[in-house]
Amino acid sequence: MKIVDVIEKKKKGLALTEEEIKFFIDGIMNGTVEDYQASALLMAVYFKGMNLDETTWLTKYMVESGEILDLSKISNNIVDKHSTGGVGDKITLMFLPLMAAADLYTAKLSGRGLGHTGGTIDKLEAIPNFRTDLSIEEFKNKVKEHKTAIAAQTLSLAPADGKLYALRDVTSTVDIIPMIASSVVSKKIASGANHIVLDVKYGSGAFIKTPEEAQKLSEIMVEVGKRLNRNICAVISSMNQPLGRAIGNSVEVQEVIEFLKGNMESDLKEITYTLCQTAFEKTGKCANKEEAWKYLDEMISSGKALEKFKEIVASQGGDVAIFDDYTKLPQASIKYEVKATCDGYVKNIDALKVAKACKNLGAGRDRKSDPIDYSAGIYLTQKYSEPVMAGETIAVIYTNKEETIKGAEELILEAFEISDEEPKAQSLIYKIIH
Amino acid sequence: MKIVDVIEKKKKGLALTEEEIKFFIDGIMNGTVEDYQASALLMAVYFKGMNLDETTWLTKYMVESGEILDLSKISNNIVDKHSTGGVGDKITLMFLPLMAAADLYTAKLSGRGLGHTGGTIDKLEAIPNFRTDLSIEEFKNKVKEHKTAIAAQTLSLAPADGKLYALRDVTSTVDIIPMIASSVVSKKIASGANHIVLDVKYGSGAFIKTPEEAQKLSEIMVEVGKRLNRNICAVISSMNQPLGRAIGNSVEVQEVIEFLKGNMESDLKEITYTLCQTAFEKTGKCANKEEAWKYLDEMISSGKALEKFKEIVASQGGDVAIFDDYTKLPQASIKYEVKATCDGYVKNIDALKVAKACKNLGAGRDRKSDPIDYSAGIYLTQKYSEPVMAGETIAVIYTNKEETIKGAEELILEAFEISDEEPKAQSLIYKIIH
Repeated sequence: MKIVDVIEKKKKGLALTEEEIKFFIDGIMNGTVEDYQASALLMAVYFKGMNLDETTWLTKYMVESGEILDLSKISNNIVDKHSTGGVGDKITLMFLPLMAAADLYTAKLSGRGLGHTGGTIDKLEAIPNFRTDLSIEEFKNKVKEHKTAIAAQTLSLAPADGKLYALRDVTSTVDIIPMIASSVVSKKIASGANHIVLDVKYGSGAFIKTPEEAQKLSEIMVEVGKRLNRNICAVISSMNQPLGRAIGNSVEVQEVIEFLKGNMESDLKEITYTLCQTAFEKTGKCANKEEAWKYLDEMISSGKALEKFKEIVASQGGDVAIFDDYTKLPQASIKYEVKATCDGYVKNIDALKVAKACKNLGAGRDRKSDPIDYSAGIYLTQKYSEPVMAGETIAVIYTNKEETIKGAEELILEAFEISDEEPKAQSLIYKIIH
Repeated sequence: MKIVDVIEKKKKGLALTEEEIKFFIDGIMNGTVEDYQASALLMAVYFKGMNLDETTWLTKYMVESGEILDLSKISNNIVDKHSTGGVGDKITLMFLPLMAAADLYTAKLSGRGLGHTGGTIDKLEAIPNFRTDLSIEEFKNKVKEHKTAIAAQTLSLAPADGKLYALRDVTSTVDIIPMIASSVVSKKIASGANHIVLDVKYGSGAFIKTPEEAQKLSEIMVEVGKRLNRNICAVISSMNQPLGRAIGNSVEVQEVIEFLKGNMESDLKEITYTLCQTAFEKTGKCANKEEAWKYLDEMISSGKALEKFKEIVASQGGDVAIFDDYTKLPQASIKYEVKATCDGYVKNIDALKVAKACKNLGAGRDRKSDPIDYSAGIYLTQKYSEPVMAGETIAVIYTNKEETIKGAEELILEAFEISDEEPKAQSLIYKIIH
């Protein structure tokens, strides 16, 4: 077999065979397929697509390109969750304690933020001394003991995906639906859980812009996951506006603790509860939404979920003093209030603009190796449908870089759309794909 | 400017600017554009094309990526000729002496054969001691003295094209019309002639399969050449059947000498005369076809063209004894006659099959570094429209590898299509694009 013939076949719009896809993935790993051949094939896939068989094989061989976590000795009922990435997306930090409080196992490997998207690992590292660099053994032991653990993604899982992603990033071939599907599902499968809940976001703050595209991606991921024997589902939701009021690292951890203390923002509650609910349904924990939401309310009101988060933080070396004293989290030297320029109601807050402002303040990075400022961030004092008055504070900026304030303020003011009419309450959930 | 943005732009089907194309070509040369980025862009161009502006800029910057021959001190009326490649295509070897006999300057840099296509340099190297590795100075001096010279293509002309071609070859991106056009025209422009005659072939033995595609390519090449201030035209002709009777290296040189001695195969005459005629018209040497063909007949019948070829061979160190004794050319140890299996008329001889047979006999190569056997080849004793009888010889195989004979015989028999009806005479010329 020659890779140039495989490229030619895809270029002509033909489906590749299992052998051809294996040859491609093996070749990326052992060097018989050159990067310039892989990128030509990727571009051909951009134009000609891949069917479900091809996407399944691609996923399968990406999984087999590296280590596969074996969690079967812990339980046969382990849940994993993945978000396609958003702005103010701290859902994992509420999802894990809620699942553990409900006696369900979760084992979560997470990534760092890049570009305008935040990363769960960065948020956790805002907690002083919190360790995310767990070895596989430590990770497994903690899951066994505390029902949950969270660690930074290891390079040994689905390494072919890592190599391909690095190439896609520099050849304008990131936006290929079957490649995105394979990338997400392969990492989840290699992570060893048998139940997978996908949080698929669309809108201004997501890399997928429309609900239709999000549905297409979700359907492919769910079908591929099923074919590879995983119990998988996808919750599709809007990411047009930031999730919750906090965007940044320290500020998001604080918002998570408040949530677990019962001070729940309605959008965070809707997404977190819906993801937990689908996991409860998949694992047989609860029969329906009503039962699940009631159960989740109990986990919050009883303080069980909060205790579980404390347990996780303690288990991974983090300072639990933060739970009673938020000043133990990294604090920015400058706090600047952004004021409304007119009266009305908040009709929209553009997630992408807020995310860009937040990144410029120091909370994000362009390259994986860049450091970030955990204390930098934005707190939205006014959110969707809430009334504002000219001169009233609508957002607070936290930063250590004074020179970034003006730009961030401008972006935030641009992000806020103020309307005379009071907008109606709206659900963020578009569809759930089983 | 970032190359990933240029790729993204082309991926979306947008036209690139002159600056973007310059950035791409410069980047290939100075290493700021990686091969994997170039190949992704090439694949995007395969799907989204390039308009005439883009193709012109691409050509221009490929020319400027290297040395440009300056022949202006020799003459302002220098002709160059390029064939897109065929089977039995020895036209250059008749074109050059005819042009020189007609007192017109030609300066020809040629390539070697690859795959099933023969190369002019290989054919000439079948002549004992013929030197094709002329330095630029030697080449210019010979053109000045003898009105013509032929040398192996130097790597210093349009090197960006060389780099891109090597990449296209291994990434299934060879068949991109604007890239082919730029590749051909850039090398011709860098070679310094001001009149360019393109011999564009289509059909089984050519890489372009249909006359429509050949016309599209020709129109682009002619327009790009004009925009870059060259007097350029393209003669489009059929390459469905081998040109002449000889395919190989020694055998083709022999056929060329016979042609110049006046024993002209009608197909060779039609293509050679038409190419010379367009050059005569472009340079003002002759006003029309009638005048041109009459002039060419005189160059043949007077022996002037033959003398010119002898002069070229002598000038470049070749053994002129071959002109009177063909056994001075490399001779194969085995001569094998292929016999017809039925009676009828030759309706077609598939050029590609004959070429493959010829390559297997030792006359061709897969890699540029592979050696070839100059003595190997095929001579078609029967050609299009000629009668054959079962048992009669239709072709002679020349080789030094006995094990290749059976396979070659089978391919030749498959290539011959025998019909009951006598086929009509046909012209090979499809169109001339000015």
